[in-house]
Amino acid sequence: MSEILKLKSPADFIGKQGNGVISFGSGQPDLPPPKEAFQGINLTRDLRYGLIQGETKLRETLAHEYPGSTADNFVITNGASEALDLIFRSWKQGEKVLLPRPYYYSYPPIVELAGLVPVYTDLVDGRIDLRDFNRKIKDCRAVLINSPSNPTGRVEAIETLKEIEATTQKLGVYVVSDEVYKDLIYERENYHIQGNHVITVNSFSKTYCMCGIRVGYLWSADKKVVEDVCEIKTHTSMNTNLVGQDMALCAMSAPKEYIRKQQGIWRERRDFITKGLIDLGFDLWKPEGAFYVLPKCKNAREFVTLLYQEYKVITYLGEWFGAPDRIRLSYALDVKQIEEGLGRIRQAMKKVRVI
Amino acid sequence: MSEILKLKSPADFIGKQGNGVISFGSGQPDLPPPKEAFQGINLTRDLRYGLIQGETKLRETLAHEYPGSTADNFVITNGASEALDLIFRSWKQGEKVLLPRPYYYSYPPIVELAGLVPVYTDLVDGRIDLRDFNRKIKDCRAVLINSPSNPTGRVEAIETLKEIEATTQKLGVYVVSDEVYKDLIYERENYHIQGNHVITVNSFSKTYCMCGIRVGYLWSADKKVVEDVCEIKTHTSMNTNLVGQDMALCAMSAPKEYIRKQQGIWRERRDFITKGLIDLGFDLWKPEGAFYVLPKCKNAREFVTLLYQEYKVITYLGEWFGAPDRIRLSYALDVKQIEEGLGRIRQAMKKVRVI
Repeated sequence: MSEILKLKSPADFIGKQGNGVISFGSGQPDLPPPKEAFQGINLTRDLRYGLIQGETKLRETLAHEYPGSTADNFVITNGASEALDLIFRSWKQGEKVLLPRPYYYSYPPIVELAGLVPVYTDLVDGRIDLRDFNRKIKDCRAVLINSPSNPTGRVEAIETLKEIEATTQKLGVYVVSDEVYKDLIYERENYHIQGNHVITVNSFSKTYCMCGIRVGYLWSADKKVVEDVCEIKTHTSMNTNLVGQDMALCAMSAPKEYIRKQQGIWRERRDFITKGLIDLGFDLWKPEGAFYVLPKCKNAREFVTLLYQEYKVITYLGEWFGAPDRIRLSYALDVKQIEEGLGRIRQAMKKVRVI
Repeated sequence: MSEILKLKSPADFIGKQGNGVISFGSGQPDLPPPKEAFQGINLTRDLRYGLIQGETKLRETLAHEYPGSTADNFVITNGASEALDLIFRSWKQGEKVLLPRPYYYSYPPIVELAGLVPVYTDLVDGRIDLRDFNRKIKDCRAVLINSPSNPTGRVEAIETLKEIEATTQKLGVYVVSDEVYKDLIYERENYHIQGNHVITVNSFSKTYCMCGIRVGYLWSADKKVVEDVCEIKTHTSMNTNLVGQDMALCAMSAPKEYIRKQQGIWRERRDFITKGLIDLGFDLWKPEGAFYVLPKCKNAREFVTLLYQEYKVITYLGEWFGAPDRIRLSYALDVKQIEEGLGRIRQAMKKVRVI
């Protein structure tokens, strides 16, 4: 390998797939949406502006998943990304937002674009360290939690979530809970943090394998949060696309079996890649949800470059997620491809010292 | 009438239609999209993330409408609203943006949300006053032009647009040209302002009557603008919804006759409402494009309230558009309804002095 690629972000790998490339890069399911997502869609429906807050029927259906809620507690957005962006933009500039680190690639930019200041609490063993958390949360406006986590694949313990729920309530700090992987927990049911100070963000992208449709939402018991977000969205994007909302609503009619079957597939892949990486000598946090694993990796930049240039394997640099001594692998690809990819990683490890 | 409604924004009228209400409120076509928009749409297409910049085929097709352009000059967005939002967010906070006044309702909030400062130049006779414009543009980062204009319905003269084009180029000031009504000019072809300092914003909403689909775009000859906008969009909303982009592409295959026929309908309505309002004694700027008319109106708040409460007629307060002594009427409804609405306005004028 003659030179080290000047990799700057995941965008450097966009459009690099195909032609024998094995990609552990992309953060999205490779599986198809449920067939229900396409059934009963009428494109020739009324295509005039919809409600800024989102279609009533979709919000009413979502309310069944959030006990004690009504359609009024939801805002439908252009994916979870826009939900986060709108929440942060509705707050006063200069306030601090606590981010567990490693974090999802877009969190610091979204916080900063809104004029807020990210503050970090480093995970210990891939989980929130409550001592550090409790010290730093005090002068923050909010904390952004992501469990299951991209990029760690870790799920916070229910006791941890409950303590965060209580501490933040006492302090009057918002918890923004990004639960886009809530249906991809292998170990237990999702624990939905509650309270007037909680804003839950979710999406149809991962559960129903329809990332490109861009339909997400936020839930809040605080009417002021809903109003403030809608006020901004009125000017910045108006209603979320109507056909996408119809597809999201239809997808929700898929039997629970669809989600359980997905979980089975993800668990099998998780087991396969985890064992494979451990057998290769990697030190890692075992993923409990989502579809990412973030092993330790010496000379990460050199290795990621080598893997791509000489072995046609895409992996992401941990430093893009606040973990410079690690690499991120997504296992959103079938076991046969994972096996082939692990074989190539084994070969590449002969050329660069990574463990 | 016992009390004056505390009208705050157009949102106060959302969901108030039906039940005999005549609405001159809504800023969207009442006509259906071209049938081509629905033909050949395959919902079971690949629904994984698309390119942040937008689907290549759609951008290539748009490039045919912009001489000398390629797909690289475009970013597909969630309506024109998101295009404007992303452009302003890509600039340094505190810079000034010149807005002709009366303005589209969302312009000042979009500028302010991005941390920029709106500066106003008042229209004279419904058109940009170049003397005032030239004085104020000097210390601005950009000017936002909207011709044809919502809410005035006016179209700037080609000579004015050319002078703005040249002045801003010399000064190194951006022109953001919101041309969402470009296909709804009754008098002449659209003049597309050009240059490396021009960012054109457009949409499929008005031309193809598909507002709820939320597909718009920006065009720029400056690669840096395209890159900066895509960088933000990567974090704040990712790709624009894919089915919407497919529908936009299909809509573009509608014959030119579709657009000409629409123009004929709008022109007929414009002539009808303009004559009707003038016959009633209103002083107004004759609309030359879009589908709005903004007559002078004394006691506007009282009149708009009376019209709504006692005559079931929705009109918008000019003050929402920076014109406190006027009211805005959209004529996106058929001639029979316009006639009925004008009759009710005639009745209401007996109770409040408006001219």
